[in-house]
Amino acid sequence: IHEPVLRDSSSSSLSVDTETLQRQIDELSTFSDTPAPSVTRILYSEKDVQARGFVKNLMSISGLSVREDAVGNIFGRWVGSEPGLPPVSTGSHIDAIPYSGKYDGVVGVLGAIEAINVLKRSGFKPKRSLEVVMFTSEEPTRFGISCLGSRLLAGSKELGQLLKRTVDGQNISFSDAAKFAGYTNNEDFSSVVLEKGTYSAFVELHIEQGPILEEEAISIGVVTAIAAPASIKVDFEGNGGHAGAVLMPKRNDAGLAAAELALAVEKHVLESGSIDTVGTVGILELHPGAINSIPSKAHLEIDARDIDERRRNLVIDKIHQSALSISKARNVELSEFKIVNQDPPALSEESITKATESACQELNMPYKKMISRAYHDSLFMARICPMGMIFIPCYKGYSHKPEEFAAPQDIANGVRVLALTFSKLSVS
Amino acid sequence: IHEPVLRDSSSSSLSVDTETLQRQIDELSTFSDTPAPSVTRILYSEKDVQARGFVKNLMSISGLSVREDAVGNIFGRWVGSEPGLPPVSTGSHIDAIPYSGKYDGVVGVLGAIEAINVLKRSGFKPKRSLEVVMFTSEEPTRFGISCLGSRLLAGSKELGQLLKRTVDGQNISFSDAAKFAGYTNNEDFSSVVLEKGTYSAFVELHIEQGPILEEEAISIGVVTAIAAPASIKVDFEGNGGHAGAVLMPKRNDAGLAAAELALAVEKHVLESGSIDTVGTVGILELHPGAINSIPSKAHLEIDARDIDERRRNLVIDKIHQSALSISKARNVELSEFKIVNQDPPALSEESITKATESACQELNMPYKKMISRAYHDSLFMARICPMGMIFIPCYKGYSHKPEEFAAPQDIANGVRVLALTFSKLSVS
Ligand SMILES: [Mn+2]
Ligand SMILES: [Mn+2]
Ligand SMILES: [Mn+2]
Ligand SMILES: [Mn+2]
Repeated sequence: IHEPVLRDSSSSSLSVDTETLQRQIDELSTFSDTPAPSVTRILYSEKDVQARGFVKNLMSISGLSVREDAVGNIFGRWVGSEPGLPPVSTGSHIDAIPYSGKYDGVVGVLGAIEAINVLKRSGFKPKRSLEVVMFTSEEPTRFGISCLGSRLLAGSKELGQLLKRTVDGQNISFSDAAKFAGYTNNEDFSSVVLEKGTYSAFVELHIEQGPILEEEAISIGVVTAIAAPASIKVDFEGNGGHAGAVLMPKRNDAGLAAAELALAVEKHVLESGSIDTVGTVGILELHPGAINSIPSKAHLEIDARDIDERRRNLVIDKIHQSALSISKARNVELSEFKIVNQDPPALSEESITKATESACQELNMPYKKMISRAYHDSLFMARICPMGMIFIPCYKGYSHKPEEFAAPQDIANGVRVLALTFSKLSVS
Repeated sequence: IHEPVLRDSSSSSLSVDTETLQRQIDELSTFSDTPAPSVTRILYSEKDVQARGFVKNLMSISGLSVREDAVGNIFGRWVGSEPGLPPVSTGSHIDAIPYSGKYDGVVGVLGAIEAINVLKRSGFKPKRSLEVVMFTSEEPTRFGISCLGSRLLAGSKELGQLLKRTVDGQNISFSDAAKFAGYTNNEDFSSVVLEKGTYSAFVELHIEQGPILEEEAISIGVVTAIAAPASIKVDFEGNGGHAGAVLMPKRNDAGLAAAELALAVEKHVLESGSIDTVGTVGILELHPGAINSIPSKAHLEIDARDIDERRRNLVIDKIHQSALSISKARNVELSEFKIVNQDPPALSEESITKATESACQELNMPYKKMISRAYHDSLFMARICPMGMIFIPCYKGYSHKPEEFAAPQDIANGVRVLALTFSKLSVS
């Protein structure tokens, strides 16, 4: 028997305005640099700035008091009856990699604001304040740094220093880009950092980005751990030259070195023997990029993940060994092999998974415990407070492409579970 | 004993204004979209238009009568004493692939104008008219079509049709691009075609783009044949998806298919067993091109050449077989395998090589007969008139990169040999 936490109403009164929420998701998707159904929303771009305005407006309409920090993390707070207690927080991101979809991250931002609306409509009064966070740049698209906002919040001092000399692919500095978006300050971003204990709990709602919930017809995934991501940048350099005139024995083709390394990444990942190890070469660029010119430079960006950090690091070591031996065999210079980040996995806090499980039970919602293979801002929030995540099914597990889809009813289910979890954490 | 063809002066009077020519080469190199020492001059770009003006001006200063055709091939004619006879022509290109150098093509255009100046200063009077041609887009950079101007001149009817529906990487049509450069007409380019017999001979001056002349300290290469080039466009398509969430067995990664094909190109070229077979993947592009997204599309452009057409075509067949088997093995769609061009090799005409050899002997210039592994506009001019080429040494054989260099004295040697060859052909 579970004690009801909604004093003034039963959990069945948690009704989501599914239609309005869907309209908001659709409207937010129009702030994009590529045509529908694809979405492309890059950090600090014009569309990103417009989308941020859209989110802040929704927060205000829901009666939240809004603040932004120096990198554009946005916070909307519903002040509780005991404002001195650390608040409970939730949130996700709204940036979208090139040609992706409209649900990744967005469900956890717009859905969180709707969860606040749900609780308000139900008559619930929070004890701890409730806070919705929209994190800046969960995706690494523009500056190569994933979870930029939550990394900084969680106290990454090195990152604050790094940002001072970080530029994007067009050589625009982080500072100039932030300035364009209205975040004008020349500090080391130490003001962004949140102390441990700032929040009593953090819980994120997100689409699964995998096929399990849909295949098993389960409404809710209760995340117990987030896989450990790493990313690597590699540059090869050779002599290039004319594609007709330089004979094969005289070549040191940087593009072929890159091709070999891409295949080596796949090989080393498969050698791990575990289904949980994944590795991807999502970026491979050749210079000068002309049909009649031998590539003199090749740039790769590699993503490697595992729920087992040691096993993932072994794969990274092997990739490095391959890069070195390819460089030697092809007489191509390995001018960069940089591990940009190599994060540990994160475990959910039992108190939060228990609260979510209770919420599911009270709402008669089938759920299952599962691992998150994608990383999320939760990975970093776990460094400063107890963390949990709520997954909902998505079509065929598709994500990071235009076909990404979550059904309105599945989103509504997630919002109800988030609202109830939130209310439980608020009074605990 | 060779009969002198310069009536009013000995061949030793053929003096090149090396300093002015070098200054012109340097000035032309500043019309570039990338910083020095690299040169990037793309067809119909603003810089290309400026460079064209520069060339037309030099032609006018040298007293040539200038005309342009519908695609921007530029002709400067010195009318001979028997203007009814087919003229002798020479020329090359001034477009430059991204991040290349300032000598490829340019030596054969500015050097040809200087050869006219040399002959004028020597008091020579041509019998046949002499014509300097600057060909449009020898490089395939913008529209994927190499030797665009000379192909059209030589009567490629299919190309005229193809151009009507050709677009560049930014989806700008050939017509719109041509219009931007001032070539405004909506025809099928049949006006560009020159009948066989329009010229009595064509001879092109060019840097070797290979190391032989420099290594052997020989001033002049007399080209006997031009290797047969081919180019291929390939597209692979897979399902893409999230780099963390899609497990390895569920992937069909278009990028890895492309990497395998790039290595297969190298393998099949080496299998030919001949030093004369070369193959290059100069372009490899991934979509969407994000570190955390599995490539859903990959685009490759392949260049394959040989002096033996049959052997080169066998390599192309093998590349096609590999593309098919990679597509099958990786469950990736081979959505395009298009042989853009598959040209035969061209042989120089003995009458022209003999004229050039005589010129070298009269000028006491060491020369050697050789093959051109790079293609040139001469490959297509050979379809409508007897053709020959004159090579000069270049630093380490470098071409298509910023380090490309030819010494002023070597250029002057080439100009003298071109002038004398030209004068011989003019009176024959
Ligand atoms: Mn994402
Ligand atoms: Mn996300
Ligand atoms: Mn070239
Ligand atoms: Mn050339």
